[in-house]
Formats: sequence, structure tokens, C-alpha cells
Amino acid sequence: MTYPVVGMVGGGQLARMTHEAGIPLGIRFRLLSDTPVESAAQVVGDVVVGDYRDLNTLREFARGCDVITFDHEHVPGDHLRALLEDGIAVRPGPDALRFAQDKGEMRQRLHALGVPCPRHRPVADPADVSAFAAEGEGFPVVLKTVRGGYDGKGVWVVRSESEAADPFRAGVPVLAEEKVDFVRELAANVVRSPHGQAVAYPVVESVQVDGVCDTVIAPAPELPAERAVAAQELALRIAEELGVVGHLAVELFETRDGRVLVNELAMRPHNSGHWTQDGAVTSQFANHLRAVLDLPLGDPRPRARWTVMANVLGGDYPDMYSAYLHCMARDPQLKIHMYGKDVKPGRKVGHVNTCGEDLADVRARARHAADYLRGTITE
Amino acid sequence: MTYPVVGMVGGGQLARMTHEAGIPLGIRFRLLSDTPVESAAQVVGDVVVGDYRDLNTLREFARGCDVITFDHEHVPGDHLRALLEDGIAVRPGPDALRFAQDKGEMRQRLHALGVPCPRHRPVADPADVSAFAAEGEGFPVVLKTVRGGYDGKGVWVVRSESEAADPFRAGVPVLAEEKVDFVRELAANVVRSPHGQAVAYPVVESVQVDGVCDTVIAPAPELPAERAVAAQELALRIAEELGVVGHLAVELFETRDGRVLVNELAMRPHNSGHWTQDGAVTSQFANHLRAVLDLPLGDPRPRARWTVMANVLGGDYPDMYSAYLHCMARDPQLKIHMYGKDVKPGRKVGHVNTCGEDLADVRARARHAADYLRGTITE
Repeated sequence: MTYPVVGMVGGGQLARMTHEAGIPLGIRFRLLSDTPVESAAQVVGDVVVGDYRDLNTLREFARGCDVITFDHEHVPGDHLRALLEDGIAVRPGPDALRFAQDKGEMRQRLHALGVPCPRHRPVADPADVSAFAAEGEGFPVVLKTVRGGYDGKGVWVVRSESEAADPFRAGVPVLAEEKVDFVRELAANVVRSPHGQAVAYPVVESVQVDGVCDTVIAPAPELPAERAVAAQELALRIAEELGVVGHLAVELFETRDGRVLVNELAMRPHNSGHWTQDGAVTSQFANHLRAVLDLPLGDPRPRARWTVMANVLGGDYPDMYSAYLHCMARDPQLKIHMYGKDVKPGRKVGHVNTCGEDLADVRARARHAADYLRGTITE
Repeated sequence: MTYPVVGMVGGGQLARMTHEAGIPLGIRFRLLSDTPVESAAQVVGDVVVGDYRDLNTLREFARGCDVITFDHEHVPGDHLRALLEDGIAVRPGPDALRFAQDKGEMRQRLHALGVPCPRHRPVADPADVSAFAAEGEGFPVVLKTVRGGYDGKGVWVVRSESEAADPFRAGVPVLAEEKVDFVRELAANVVRSPHGQAVAYPVVESVQVDGVCDTVIAPAPELPAERAVAAQELALRIAEELGVVGHLAVELFETRDGRVLVNELAMRPHNSGHWTQDGAVTSQFANHLRAVLDLPLGDPRPRARWTVMANVLGGDYPDMYSAYLHCMARDPQLKIHMYGKDVKPGRKVGHVNTCGEDLADVRARARHAADYLRGTITE
């Protein structure tokens, strides 16, 4: 057998869908999962249960893998450097991942590269937040812990100095950013190989609700072509400058005055790329694998005029499977992607993709299915 | 957790690809595999290693499954009846599967239904084969053991009585059939649910080389629309009359005089349906699962004007993975599906799918990739 072994750290839905995309490649997929019941651990054959924060566990897991990649960005950089010293290929590597792990380092590096970002600086305490506000347009100000945040966690919008105490309680460095007056959020997804090949997916619109991605529309409607190309070029440049290998999601603000600013980076398959499973020639998961294996990348072009992804959040009704009957009967083209997770209110437990020629229809079909699966509508 | 458990008997590539298609549905997939290294066993999380010919093993496996389905048609009917008596849903059931397991019963039943078949009858010995030949157009005559054949095994074309001895040596009943003067082979693939819903995929052309499927073209080029619809209706009717649940492949001969005759039946995902993974809105594997779970079926329509599937057979060169580099770089739209099998000369180890607007181009791309992976061409 000459097929390589890809080791993926983290048992979430991104690993689950990466395994799915790896089956046709004939590669071996090995998973390091916190528990045997995680989303990916349910469907992968070769699962090691262990804690990625423990270096010995990680080393033991990596032995026999041809390359290590990630479902999340939480593996300590020192651990990854130890793997590199062991001769293991780590993709993306620690020197790239630090910019996805630490928002302070990310801002500093992007600023140095001349990449347009929201006004920002580290802040020491609530009084310093007031000073930051005074340096610009005043309150509100966005505060972020530099590490550990996701899906709106670790992010606060504060309207006064007195509201600014919470973020400092965890003892993690805090970054202040201007509250950008954006018209919408975009995402530019690219994939880059060690040998420097890169592909860019169409720029998408990402609709957030309560800080959580709700809907993604591919391509972003009415985005001027030159702005779309500029966003793709920006993402490709960031991938190259930061030495990213694999999938890179660049979350963007489109401002009222027509600028595009970088909000966040993610160096792994990303929620804003889930539409590619059914809407692109090659999915983000397949291309992430091809990149970390240093294989030529697949065509990122869309297969339909419009694709809409809607996240399925947990609601009050625990039995989503029963809802398949109505959803599938109503829309034979609907693509359901569930993660094998127990339903908890607000938890992302799956997503749906719809494709077609008419955006309003494609969007309505995705919305209906996501709402029906959640249980917020009953017909 | 309310998601059902699907138990699949047999660890081959059909189970591997069915598992792949089941991951997005969030269902639980349990595999009964002869060994832990079979194609599907490499990628499935929940694997029971055991012999499906042993009723206790099968019963133990089925316990806790909501439905049992199959990678192959070799499970004895009596075992399946025992599972039904245990209260297990078996799909397709033994009363349908017998017509895929026994070519004699299949011919008898299709004949009774008035389905056009090659002239046929059971034969007792070589002299009886001569008599069968004399009843029609003479030699050559096709001889088939009624059980156990696949991919050209268990099938002989004999040109004289003296050539007709071999098929009788195994002690299995032998069926004689006229050697049909066909212009090409077609396949009509349909999927049927317990509640009677059914979908028909476009009729495809199946190009056989040495009795093994080599290439599938979807849809079959220049097939008159009324003949295509007639073939679909025929397959739908067979599925209903035989009570098939799940995927049914009806392999057909298109004769020089414009008739369509049934060659073989397969009651499981089938090589002639592999093109649906990349060329149809819903793959045969996803629809097989939806059928055995009695979920509404997915849209079977094509996603491209032409899709070509080419099987990758083992050649002299064992390392197919190295060949990915050239194939993927040459054709970023190429879809490779490998089965995790060791290369042996002539063994089906994978397939490729290509899609596009121009048939000659789509076909050439598939041919190139299959030949390059096999090692019969080097550029």
C-alpha cells in the first residue's frame, strides 16, 4: 500500500466532512478525538482517543502519519514545533497557525503587510478602552480576547468604559477594534499547497445572526467583479505571505463606503465554505486534503449559478431525523449534512445546501429546510 | 439520538461508497465485513468482522440495526428469512433478492411478466445444449451457472457441444441463452422505496471489455427518447413486480433490430451507476440509503450534459497514488474514486468520473486517467 496516512487532530464536524471527502482518494485517515463519540469519531475507522494538549499523546498519534492537519486551531504551537522536530509534516505549520490562534499577532502581521483591517490596538484595562475609543470615532468599541474565541464567544461590543470590564477577567490579552460600519460580511476562501499552487473560491456573503454564521450565499450577490477579484487576491496574498498550507478562510467586512477589511482568519475548512460540497466542482474539504498532501488542487469553480448554505441550529425539538421526511419530500434537490451531534439549543448540528438558477428560490428552500429541521416552523 | 442504524453486509467498495454517502445523513452505519482490511472496513467506524454465511454471526450483527442491506447478493435466502422472523427489516428482502441470486428464477419470472429476454432454458448436459442450439439459431450459445457468477465469471460462450462440458463440472444448474446479436449494452438504474416511490436515472451505455465493465456513458449516446423511456419504464416495472427495495440495476442488450432485452439484474448499487456520484443531483448510493430507510428519494437528474465513468483496473504498476500527481494536474475537474484495494492485474481497484458538454472530450479525459492510473500509458 502506497497511500499516505493523513492524521487529523480534533473530532468535530470539519474532521467528519474531511474524512468523507478523503474516502474517494483512497488515502488512510486517522483521527485524534477527545472522546469516541465526537462527530467525526462516529464515522472514521481509525480513531485514537486522546487529549491533543498532551504532547506525548500527540507524538504517539503522529507516529506513522505522513502529514498532520487540524479540525481546529487549538493545538499549542510548541507541540507542533516538537512534531516538526520529530520529522512529521504539519500542515498548516505552527508559523502560519499562530496568526489564526492569536488575534493580536494576526492584526500586527496583517497591518505590517498593508492589509486593510479595522483600526485596532491591544488594550490593558477599561480606561485604556476609553482612550482607544477617544482616538477614533468613540464608542461602541469591539473587544476580543486574543485567544480562544469562536462563534461570537470571546467577543464583546461595549458602549462605555463601564461595560468594558468583562473581557479582562479571564487574564488573556485583550484587543480593541473599531466597530466597523459594514453593510455585510463576506468571506474569501482559498486553498494553498506546499509547492505554492493556490485556488480561490468565489467570494461569498456570510449572514451572521447573534455572532453565529446563519446563511452563506455563493457567490455574494451584486458584488462588483473588481471587488470580488480584489478580495480573492487579498486572500491569496495572505495565504502566501503567512505560509498557509491547506484551506484559508478570510472573513471580511464590506463597508458602506465600498472598502473590504479583514475581520478574522481561519486556517482549516470553514463554515463559509460548506456550500462547496454541493455547489463547487471540488469541495473545500477535498482541496484541503489535496493541499496538505501536496497534490495538485481541484477546480474551485461553482457548479450552479447560486448555492445557499444555511446552518441548522439546535432548537427545542430533539428529533431532527423525523423532519427529513417532510424536507426531502418537499425538495428532492435538498442536500442535508448532519454532524451526528445531540441537539442543544443554539448548537450547530448540521447544515443544508441548495443550488439553482433563481436566488430567491434557492434561498427560500435553504431557509425552509433549516427552520423546519430546527422545529421553528411546522409546515 | 434518534438516527437509525443501517447495517450493511459485505465490506467491498459498494459498502465503502454507501458509507461515504451516509455520512451527511447523520445516520449510523454498521458494517459486517469478512476481514478488518476490506475496502469498506478501512473507512467505517462501526465494523463487525465475521462471516455472513454463519446465521448466528448475521443475527448478532443485525441486532440493534434498524435495517439490513447489502454490498453483494450472496447472503442465503434462508438466513434473511430468519432475520425477518427476528423482526429485522431486510431491504431488499429475500423474496426480491432470489431473482438477483438465481438467474434461472430471474429468467422464469421475467418471462412470466412478459419482459423481453434472450431465448433461454435450463440445460442438463452438453447434448442438451446442442438441442437448445438446434431449437433456435444454432451455436454459439451462452451458458451460465444460475448462481455465483459476476464480472464474466460463471459465463461461457460455447461454439459446439464439445466446448459445453466446463459449465456442468461445478454441479450447479446451468442456463442456456441465445447469443444476442446486440449493438451495445445499456443499463437502466432505478431506486424504489418500501412505500412505493421510485426514481429512474438516465439510461446509460455500458461498454464491456472481456466481460468486465470498462466505461459507462451517461446518458447513452443517440438513444432514441422513446427507447430510453421504455427502458426506464421496464426497470421501474421490474422493481415493482419483484418488490425490490433500494437500487436496482437492469443490464440490457440493445439489439441490431432495435429491441431491448434484459441481460442481468443487480439489487444493490451497481458499477453502471457510479457516474451518479459526480454526474447526478443524488447519487445511487445516497438514494439506496434513502430507499432502505424509507425516506423520500432524491432527484436522479443529471448535473452535466455528459458524464463518463471509467473503471480503473489493476495493472503491472502497484503504486497508483504517484499517478495522482499527473492526473490531477492535467485535469482539475477529474474525480478519482479509489477503493483502498491492493493492485492485482485486472482487479477493479477504483474508477474515475468526468463531466462536461463535449462527449468526445469527456470520454477522452476519463480514458486517459484510467489508463494512466493503471500504468498502460505514461504521459
